[in-house]
Amino acid sequence: MDPRLPTAEDEHFMRAAIRLGEKAALIDGTGGPFGCVIVKDGKIIAEGSNHVVSENDPTWHGEMEAIRAAAKKLGTFDLSGCTLYTTGEPCPMCAGAIFWARIDRVVYASTIADALCYGQFDDQPIYQDLAKPIAERRTPAVQCLREEMLDLWRRYEAKPDRIRY
Amino acid sequence: MDPRLPTAEDEHFMRAAIRLGEKAALIDGTGGPFGCVIVKDGKIIAEGSNHVVSENDPTWHGEMEAIRAAAKKLGTFDLSGCTLYTTGEPCPMCAGAIFWARIDRVVYASTIADALCYGQFDDQPIYQDLAKPIAERRTPAVQCLREEMLDLWRRYEAKPDRIRY
Repeated sequence: MDPRLPTAEDEHFMRAAIRLGEKAALIDGTGGPFGCVIVKDGKIIAEGSNHVVSENDPTWHGEMEAIRAAAKKLGTFDLSGCTLYTTGEPCPMCAGAIFWARIDRVVYASTIADALCYGQFDDQPIYQDLAKPIAERRTPAVQCLREEMLDLWRRYEAKPDRIRY
Repeated sequence: MDPRLPTAEDEHFMRAAIRLGEKAALIDGTGGPFGCVIVKDGKIIAEGSNHVVSENDPTWHGEMEAIRAAAKKLGTFDLSGCTLYTTGEPCPMCAGAIFWARIDRVVYASTIADALCYGQFDDQPIYQDLAKPIAERRTPAVQCLREEMLDLWRRYEAKPDRIRY
């Protein structure tokens, strides 16, 4: 089977994510129509939805909430073996979190272009910006005290019991 | 004054961030040597440090904690007017969060190359991966039920009282 084609199971779990997005945007009014479920071994282990508006939290995307909940539930920062279902193609923040969490597979419904068209959510310039070196991005960035930080890095490197992750 | 050069104030706040990173990595052992402070009007309004290991949370980077805390403290998801100090050049997840939070300026100490050299933290492949369309990234991605999601998008677009963000 082509892993890039959705299955009937994918549709089932995506409908659960869409219901969460609908609740967030149209019923509770917590944020945009973004819902997310994380599935392992055929079962939903965590859910999330957008709460940027209600919680005044710019990082509270559905994917972020679901990843944190899944990691807490499984007791590990390694979500290998999990599939993440999200109503919208992930933004760079969530795509980065998906990488760090070692999620196996992502299923999404609408595209970044759809989110711009219907919701004025514009992720594309962020993707373009992050493809540049930090000194060329829109947010001005300054390097400071690298040598003092390298001293800390060397002490961290020499720590015998540090946990690699 | 060139806004791309660090000031004495920048060094002061970066030392606070380095102390948080040192505490996280060498004293409490919560994660890597990553600390962050967010400054508004010359004062630290929020702090964060890496807790990936101790909290089993792959998203618990210092920047994420500090951004969430700053937004909570100010009661808004818009952190315009704030400068973020971080011990390491931000990863794509945190750089995305910095964008969404509308942080004005970023000050960092060590580079992505330093983090790889001393800590085996490898952000560069994530940056390279996120510069590609979702279908070409390492994590397999599948689109599913776009039409059902577009129905929700249209109802969201038609909602008279939605809060734009």
